[in-house]
This record gives sequence, C-alpha cells and structure tokens, in this order.
Amino acid sequence: MIIDIAKQCREASIMTSTMDGQTKNKALKMVAKALKENADAVIEANSKDLKKAREEGLGDALYKRLKFDGTKLSESVEGIESLIRLPDPVGVVQIERELDDGLILRRTSCPIGVLGIVFESRPDALVQISCLALKSGNAVLLKGGAEAMETNGVLADIIIRTSVSAGIPKGWMSLLQTRDEVTEMLSLHDIIDLVIPRGSNEFVQYIMRNTKIPVLGHADGICHVYVDSKADINVAATVAFDSKCQYPSVCNAMETLLLHHDIAGEFLPVIKERFDVAGVEVRGDKEVRKYIDCLPADETDWHTEYNDLIVSIKIVKEVDEAIAHINQYGSHHTDAIVTSDRKTAKRFMDLIDSANVFWNCSTRFSDGFRYGLGAEVGISTNKIHARGPVGLEGLTIYKWTLEGNGHIVADYTGSGLRKFKHRDMRNA
Amino acid sequence: MIIDIAKQCREASIMTSTMDGQTKNKALKMVAKALKENADAVIEANSKDLKKAREEGLGDALYKRLKFDGTKLSESVEGIESLIRLPDPVGVVQIERELDDGLILRRTSCPIGVLGIVFESRPDALVQISCLALKSGNAVLLKGGAEAMETNGVLADIIIRTSVSAGIPKGWMSLLQTRDEVTEMLSLHDIIDLVIPRGSNEFVQYIMRNTKIPVLGHADGICHVYVDSKADINVAATVAFDSKCQYPSVCNAMETLLLHHDIAGEFLPVIKERFDVAGVEVRGDKEVRKYIDCLPADETDWHTEYNDLIVSIKIVKEVDEAIAHINQYGSHHTDAIVTSDRKTAKRFMDLIDSANVFWNCSTRFSDGFRYGLGAEVGISTNKIHARGPVGLEGLTIYKWTLEGNGHIVADYTGSGLRKFKHRDMRNA
Repeated sequence: MIIDIAKQCREASIMTSTMDGQTKNKALKMVAKALKENADAVIEANSKDLKKAREEGLGDALYKRLKFDGTKLSESVEGIESLIRLPDPVGVVQIERELDDGLILRRTSCPIGVLGIVFESRPDALVQISCLALKSGNAVLLKGGAEAMETNGVLADIIIRTSVSAGIPKGWMSLLQTRDEVTEMLSLHDIIDLVIPRGSNEFVQYIMRNTKIPVLGHADGICHVYVDSKADINVAATVAFDSKCQYPSVCNAMETLLLHHDIAGEFLPVIKERFDVAGVEVRGDKEVRKYIDCLPADETDWHTEYNDLIVSIKIVKEVDEAIAHINQYGSHHTDAIVTSDRKTAKRFMDLIDSANVFWNCSTRFSDGFRYGLGAEVGISTNKIHARGPVGLEGLTIYKWTLEGNGHIVADYTGSGLRKFKHRDMRNA
Repeated sequence: MIIDIAKQCREASIMTSTMDGQTKNKALKMVAKALKENADAVIEANSKDLKKAREEGLGDALYKRLKFDGTKLSESVEGIESLIRLPDPVGVVQIERELDDGLILRRTSCPIGVLGIVFESRPDALVQISCLALKSGNAVLLKGGAEAMETNGVLADIIIRTSVSAGIPKGWMSLLQTRDEVTEMLSLHDIIDLVIPRGSNEFVQYIMRNTKIPVLGHADGICHVYVDSKADINVAATVAFDSKCQYPSVCNAMETLLLHHDIAGEFLPVIKERFDVAGVEVRGDKEVRKYIDCLPADETDWHTEYNDLIVSIKIVKEVDEAIAHINQYGSHHTDAIVTSDRKTAKRFMDLIDSANVFWNCSTRFSDGFRYGLGAEVGISTNKIHARGPVGLEGLTIYKWTLEGNGHIVADYTGSGLRKFKHRDMRNA
C-alpha cells in the first residue's frame, strides 16, 4: 500500500530534516560516483526502454527525451557536482530577535517535509529532483513515466542504496510503479506536503485538478514579447526571434508578439523575413495583415500555447493595451518588453503580473540554471511560496523557535506589566 | 454578480501593486482619522447588531466578540498607527545578480494580488485585515459574519471611501454580503490568489474543503507542553499553567501535557493543585492515574482541541516518545519543551514538525504581535509560503525581472560560446 510507503517517507523526513550539510554532500558525492560506476547497467536498462518505445511507436520527440546515454549520465553527474558546491539551504537563521531579556525568537529555514514528484519520460529528471530533495533535506515519493520504467528502476535503486549507505535515513526516497499508485498518492494530503509535476500541460493540469495537496509548477507557458514604439528594430528582431525559435517546444518560448502601431510598419517585414527563413507560421490580426501577408489570428490564438514554430502577432495602440492583453491572456509565466525608454519599461515591469518580466532580452532566459540557482525543480506560476524558477530555496520553509527560562504570557498582559523589547539581533 | 466585483478587484490589484509607501501610509493615516471622527456612527451600528444578537439569543462569548465600543475602536486605530510605522514590504530587492555584462537579474517583493478574506463575528478583524492588505498593496474581497452586518457595513464604508479619496485605486476593497456570495467567491480560483479564513475550526475546515484557491491558516490548534526529566519543577508548573490557563479558548493554548516518567511523581501533585484552583478538568492516562486522582484520558483526547479549561496528561518514557506523540497527534501549530538540558531541547526543537517550537516558555507566545511582526492576519500551519504567525511579509511574494540590451539565449548554448558570470550584487 502506498499509504505505508508514504508514512515511512514521512517518518524518514523528520530525520532527514536534521541532517547536516556534510552528510548530505557526502551522500551526493557517493551517488555521483555510483552512477558513473554503474553506467553500463543504466544504459542497458535504458536500451530496453528504448527498444520497447520503438516497438510501441513512440514519437521522435518523446524517444529523444527518453534516451539516457553516456552524455546524459555525465550531465547528471555534473549536475550533482554543482549541487554539492551550493550552500546548505537548511538551518539558515533568517530572523533572530530578543523579545525580552532571555526570550530569544529565531526563524530558521527547514525542509518542507515530504515531496510527491511525478514526471513524464525524462530519466534525468529523476536524478536531478531526487538530489535536490536530498540536499534540501526533504523525503520524496517519485513516479516516472511508464515508458522509462527500466531506466528509472535502475537509477532509483542506485540512488537509494548509495544514499542510505552514506547515512541518509532509510525510507527517505521511494519509487512508485503504477498510475494507480499516483492516484492514491494524490489523495494523501495529510502525509505529503507538496506535489511537483513535471511534464506536458495536460499532465500538470490533471495533477492540479486531482489533489488537495499544494502543487508547485505551471500548466501553460503563454509568453509574450511586446515591441514598443521606442524599440531598436534590430534588438527587437533579435529578441523576438530568439524568444520564438531558439527552442520553440518549451514553456518559456514566445507564443504571441505584440507591436506598438507606430513601429509595426517598419518592424513587420523585418521579423517576417526572419520567421520565414526559420519556417515559422505567422498568424496576424487584421491590422497586422495590412502590412504583411500571413494567416489570420483570432481570440483562440491569444489563448494558445503552440509549443511549435507558430507565432501570433497583434498590434496595440500603446503599452497599456499590451499590459492589459498580457495580464488577460498570458499565463503569468514570462513576458518581455523591447524599448529604449526606461519609463515605459518600468511601467511594463511594474504592471505585468507574471513571475518573470524582462526588458530587452529573450524570454528564454527564464530558467533556474541561467538565473544561477544551480538547478531547478521547475518554474512556478503560483503566487504563494515560490515563483519563477524554483531551486533549493523553494524546497524549504521555516520554523519559529523561542527560547526562554520560564517566560509566561500572563506577565505581558494588562497594564503596568512587562513590555516586549523586540530587539533585532539579526534580520535577513 | 461577485465575479464582476472580483474582476474589478483584480484590475485594481494591478494598480495597488505599484503604490508607493508614502501613498499607502497617507491613506492609512486618513483611515485612522476617519474612524475616530465617525466613532458615533460605528458604535450606533454596532448597538443595532448587539440588540439583534440579544434578541436572537447569541451566547455570551460571541456577544463579547461582536461588541465594538470606544475601547475596541481605539485599539483598532492604534493598530493602524503601528502598521504605519512598519517599513513598506513591497519593492524590496531580495536578489540582484549580474548574469553577464549588462544582463541584470533582480528578485523584488510584490503583493500577492487579490485576497479573499472570510471572518466570523469580530468587526475589529475587518479593520486589521483590510489595513494589512492596503499596506502590502493587495486588493481584498471581505466577508464578515451576518451577526456583525451593520458594524461591518459602516466600517467598510469608511475605509473604502477614505482610502479611495487618498488615492488608492477604486475597487481595491469590497465587502460581500451573503453566504452565497462567499460560495461564489471560493469558486473564483482564476481571480483570487489566496483565501484567509478567520474563525472557528469548523469554519476554517469548511473553507479549506470548499475551494481550490490556496488557504492560509490553521484548522486545529492542538498544542503540547512536554516536561522532561531534567526540568525545573517550578518552571515546568509555571509554563504548563500559563499555556493552559492564560486564555484557554485560543489556538495556541495547551491541550495535552506530556511528562517524562522520571519526573511525573514529583510534578503531578504540584500541577494538579494549580489546575484544581483554576477549575481545570484533568484527564490522565493509566500511568497518570497512579499518581493523581483524575478522569481517564483515551485516544480521543490526544486528538481533541478542548478550547476550554480541560487538559489531557500522558506519561512518556523519553523525549523521543514525546516527539513521536506530538508529530502524530498535534496540529503542527505550537509545542514546547521544559528542560534544563540543552541537548534534549535541541533534539525536541529539531524533530518537532511544527510551525512554532518553544523551549522553557509558554505556548501562548505564539502570536504576531508578541513576535514583533506588528500585526498578523493569522497563524499558518501550512508548510509552503508562510508558517506560524503571518504579518505583512506573508502577504507578499516576489517577481523576477531581467534587464538586458538585446541579450539572447542562442549566444549561451552549445560549446565555446558566452558563459554566465552569476556575480551577486546583493543577496538577502
């Protein structure tokens, strides 16, 4: 029963929360070593998955994601090594305050507890996420895609065996096997603190709809670039092209390009030519089609994440119309403005209600590695807890502790009695 | 329709997010002044509510909470004045990082957006919470208890009218009137970012069960005091008594007292005498009843928040049994240990999975005012976002901004190309 595995995981999480940084880094080092030493077993398991995938006619894109070869393994090991170099996110004293003589309040970072992580296809996600969980002192229940079952099984076995032998409490990580187990896991809101889904929009939406546990992540990635009247045409074309074409199938790629009407006439032929060369299908509103020849775009397009070489273009009267459009149709993920006017840029960045708001650079920068977070468990469009790319810090919360020597509240109530000092000794 | 009011609130929230600290403080000052000037109208409205409450046979406790007289009004005004003195929680740059030449990443605090606040009885909660929302730049939909309708109507009218005339965007705050409107509000997960319920456990649980919007708060408050073998008997009796009796009907009062078996014989008669004088009903497990005469406690008691002058007592073999009991039966709210042994205290504080963990002091200190947070919207037992007493900071999240001058991701992919610098300019 999953509930028993989950309860073990919860018990282990109490112990993992107190592990010191040295123990965690030692375990990570041993895991990295074990992965290298067992490369053959991993690659052999992966070829079984790949063979089955071919037989079952898995698409090329999914096949590519499923593949876990020597290069992917090296990248995973490198990821672990960079994780080791990051400071321990647990035990950081954020607030230290003397409430009164001898009564010391501290707010200290601690792990969230038990994470339920569900991901599709990519076996490297298993390595990355379980190691992030380990470093942040969390316990994890993991479930990967059925198509990667053999690879995930071998990887999880290596990580669990090695980490436990390095002193990480038994039961801190478990790999679930079936879809039914995920359904059961999603119902355990008393045991699991946070669910992190990694996969397609439909997959994430399914998870969000089917659990009362908080879910960290994003469903859609409808990102915009707005080219202001005061934009440099070259910068605008470069940024818009990179945002759309550098990797069109990911969440931080641009879907809709908004243009100030004063610049549309000059800009549209330039960007159209670049899009044509790259094979991008352009859809424009009525105004756009006055300047260039393209397919029509309608209301549906503003709502659509193409994840493909398709772009919708709309002309707006002013920055405020662009802001309103983005706040209405966007997914609060990543949106960019191109302008040489600082005031307009500030207004855009202030009023766009998204996790990531950029000025004169590509939406594709929205990523934990590029932000220097070391690694990421995903990008969150939530408006509580962690927003944007989420690294180690997003897997922690804090605990308040208060040390006294017999202090009681009765002494501080009514008039003429003891008063609080509230003297900050440290306040991050 | 509530959806229209909520949409107005969402639009206003975009504007309130950019209000500077001066504007917000000016509005708060004017609200405080207007409340004082309109004291008669508030008190008159409240007497109507009180008269109706008497006619309908409202209990004494609820009647007392409903009462909003000159003293309560002064306290509310004082609360606003202390809020004015707190720094603006919005616009704080938490991270500033040079990703590469001219490519600057910033993480800046911003309001959450639209808060849905539902509270029972106490009209002072309306003043406190709407002013916290204003100071943190959030927009709010509020719904108070039907029994306080007249008072809430007048208070909301004063706050809305005054704040809008002080320059806060129209629509930033609305008062809902009926229960049906709350049901509708709880369904608007695309518009409302966070729900904060204030009221009885049943009320909070009802809200939590009936919305997909994140809920900040706690349902139960099953708090413990554990008296270790190395406790000073006087300190233990003082802390246990204050934790139970100083205000027994609130969430941070102790419900269960755990005793190390080595100290039980000496401690039980002492605390029993104090509890007897205060009229506390004592329920003990089999071991406890070997030392003192009291009612029996069973499994149900460990799960129960009495909110009354009742205490359950259990004897444990060691600190780890106390920790296991608290993590199993507690509500992860506030738990305390009394011991003179630092090592045991540390183990307890490390392993107890609660928002607030105390050493040698009363559980009753668990409170935003006592912590020096200025004011609180409630105490959260959530494990993401904000935990423990939640003040202004808990009503904010952050936004990532990135400024470049035409930077694109294509320049940073593949080998031999540009590398990120990730130079921290500021890191809180």
